[in-house]
Amino acid sequence: MVLLTRKVEFSSAHFYWNDAWSPEENARVFGKCSNRNGHGHNYVLEVTVAGEIDPVSGFVVDLKELKAILEREVVSIYDHRHLNHEVPEFAKRQPTVENIAVSIWARLSGKIPHAQLHRVRVYETDDLFADFEGFEGEDA
Amino acid sequence: MVLLTRKVEFSSAHFYWNDAWSPEENARVFGKCSNRNGHGHNYVLEVTVAGEIDPVSGFVVDLKELKAILEREVVSIYDHRHLNHEVPEFAKRQPTVENIAVSIWARLSGKIPHAQLHRVRVYETDDLFADFEGFEGEDA
Amino acid sequence: MVLLTRKVEFSSAHFYWNDAWSPEENARVFGKCSNRNGHGHNYVLEVTVAGEIDPVSGFVVDLKELKAILEREVVSIYDHRHLNHEVPEFAKRQPTVENIAVSIWARLSGKIPHAQLHRVRVYETDDLFADFEGFEGEDA
Amino acid sequence: MVLLTRKVEFSSAHFYWNDAWSPEENARVFGKCSNRNGHGHNYVLEVTVAGEIDPVSGFVVDLKELKAILEREVVSIYDHRHLNHEVPEFAKRQPTVENIAVSIWARLSGKIPHAQLHRVRVYETDDLFADFEGFEGEDA
Amino acid sequence: MVLLTRKVEFSSAHFYWNDAWSPEENARVFGKCSNRNGHGHNYVLEVTVAGEIDPVSGFVVDLKELKAILEREVVSIYDHRHLNHEVPEFAKRQPTVENIAVSIWARLSGKIPHAQLHRVRVYETDDLFADFEGFEGEDA
Amino acid sequence: MVLLTRKVEFSSAHFYWNDAWSPEENARVFGKCSNRNGHGHNYVLEVTVAGEIDPVSGFVVDLKELKAILEREVVSIYDHRHLNHEVPEFAKRQPTVENIAVSIWARLSGKIPHAQLHRVRVYETDDLFADFEGFEGEDA
Repeated sequence: MVLLTRKVEFSSAHFYWNDAWSPEENARVFGKCSNRNGHGHNYVLEVTVAGEIDPVSGFVVDLKELKAILEREVVSIYDHRHLNHEVPEFAKRQPTVENIAVSIWARLSGKIPHAQLHRVRVYETDDLFADFEGFEGEDA
Repeated sequence: MVLLTRKVEFSSAHFYWNDAWSPEENARVFGKCSNRNGHGHNYVLEVTVAGEIDPVSGFVVDLKELKAILEREVVSIYDHRHLNHEVPEFAKRQPTVENIAVSIWARLSGKIPHAQLHRVRVYETDDLFADFEGFEGEDA
Repeated sequence: MVLLTRKVEFSSAHFYWNDAWSPEENARVFGKCSNRNGHGHNYVLEVTVAGEIDPVSGFVVDLKELKAILEREVVSIYDHRHLNHEVPEFAKRQPTVENIAVSIWARLSGKIPHAQLHRVRVYETDDLFADFEGFEGEDA
Repeated sequence: MVLLTRKVEFSSAHFYWNDAWSPEENARVFGKCSNRNGHGHNYVLEVTVAGEIDPVSGFVVDLKELKAILEREVVSIYDHRHLNHEVPEFAKRQPTVENIAVSIWARLSGKIPHAQLHRVRVYETDDLFADFEGFEGEDA
Repeated sequence: MVLLTRKVEFSSAHFYWNDAWSPEENARVFGKCSNRNGHGHNYVLEVTVAGEIDPVSGFVVDLKELKAILEREVVSIYDHRHLNHEVPEFAKRQPTVENIAVSIWARLSGKIPHAQLHRVRVYETDDLFADFEGFEGEDA
Repeated sequence: MVLLTRKVEFSSAHFYWNDAWSPEENARVFGKCSNRNGHGHNYVLEVTVAGEIDPVSGFVVDLKELKAILEREVVSIYDHRHLNHEVPEFAKRQPTVENIAVSIWARLSGKIPHAQLHRVRVYETDDLFADFEGFEGEDA
């Protein structure tokens, strides 16, 4: 088993807000992230798949196919979007880097042919990232 | 004369839109950036100052003071903000990386004691950046 | 379970020396690192914690709190210090990147509320890093 | 047990080609990589070893020795070489980043004194890397 | 005048060789780079253009157009190619990073609408890069 | 004229201190850098030379020779050293990044055969760097 990791990027806006709380409570818990106009990040996504190397092609996974899956399932939906307003899973969950990693796992799970989804890593900045390793087919 | 460069970061949302154009024209010119919900970036700002080295301190500029100026004049105003909605200069200019560089020059010009503002560089992503070198005191 | 990683940096001096050895033996084993004036590095510390995502905040750990813990338990003690002369654990251990990783684990173990310390990674340079994964509460 | 990782680089040419296929089939599967003149990369190799910290030296492994092993077993053989034409394992396997990781594991396995080879990671570009963790002594 | 810089990458093979010299002389001058099978690099190209900011779009140059020009004039010709064998300017010049920078200037000169080509920077590795600033229209 | 830049690194300890001042004044001006045990950095040095491309070799400067000069004139003197105690120019000047850049210019000036020293850039951290462009032969 070999692990192969492909990195892609998307640029999105987000904020954190809980309607059940007062503005003061939102500011206390979420700090500057509670600004409801939103701010944004260049997110970096590293998707790791596990599999056997095909003896003829030398590939664990066809990279053109993997790139197309990442584009279709994640980048086309998250990139140049406001996560709170335009990506459905963040209507009910805060778009923290932790929840983004879990949501991307759910979007990719079961979609990689001939290989297992192994790990999703999302960097919000160079100094902060989240890793999620679920089980294939699991609804994260 | 020695140049000293300090890097700081800010995370902001933005979009490009011209009210005088149809939505189709905005989409044609600005592409995905015309999404009025906004998207965002981790902007990297490199501010370069020029000056003589103080023979006692060995400094061109006091770094604690420079950091405080960058925080007060730029970061506190741009960071975790939606540039279109919350930063006044982008009410009348598109918040492109070119305009951001010029606007930061205007905000910093004349504010660095004992040194000359030499250059403002702003990275929108790792792959795209703008440089502006104006004249001290000039209204960019 | 999601892993969250926060990166911080500290700049320190260090050297390697064993009093039981001759200067020649120290030079043979430790090379340029045996210079007792010390040299230094920009260390990069990546601390990974594991936990459940809080369904309301979307956080595995409160980042403001985590940052304060890293500042109090590590950065305020290691940064701008000479590790051999000023940090107690390196009176009896060489301040190698391996020992620094283990010592930071011991300093952080049991200090992260609502999450498990999962891994400590320390980069001495871009080309050299150490990982330690101990057990929470263990005296490393 | 502590993990220590050392990074080295090598610059090589490669291409992908299967003699059993037509040129059209090679182009369809391998795309631009099927150009038999070759293209090339700055490969980055991260070798991770696992071991106990020596209580006297503070080392998991002697870095001068590790560097010499990496130079002798890998860099001197792969660097500034055309992998297809000059490195024997790629006479019978495509020099994909997956196969390079496995081949470097085989070259290093059993060669690190006083520590266990734990993982080989190879970056072909910043956006693509492979990890292999075999068993020491195994012919990968 | 504002400078705007766009980064793109290409992966190519190359070697250095002078037919007028003996193999020994080639090895003495060019070292490992004289291996005629070729080796390769992930080249990074930064193209800087200078111009006025359009008051309506906020652009010095249309980035979609600039990206298309870089793809058409440089990347499609250099990427996944053996520079010595497949790129005409290197039939008569060594494909050193200096000559690559000058050749890319010549390929781009006069091709950027509404802006001036200002500088071409090419990185062969993270540790080595060349800059060329010619005159627009000049045959480099 | 083409510019060629070579990057090298050195790891050194330093502190800032003025004997003419009280400890309180040193702490006020130099902050944590006034700790006389020293702290340290992984310094990154970028040396830029300007010259004509040799039509036969394709080189502005022989890289093996340039590397040897940087090693002999700078790295062997600064690396794994305490700048205040072991490098003569910092007996009388604070080893700030500004002074380090000027000192390296003085050390390299007139030493690069067949090319002009054009610029010395020194990074103390990723967030702070100094540039010096003197005149060849000038005693900086």
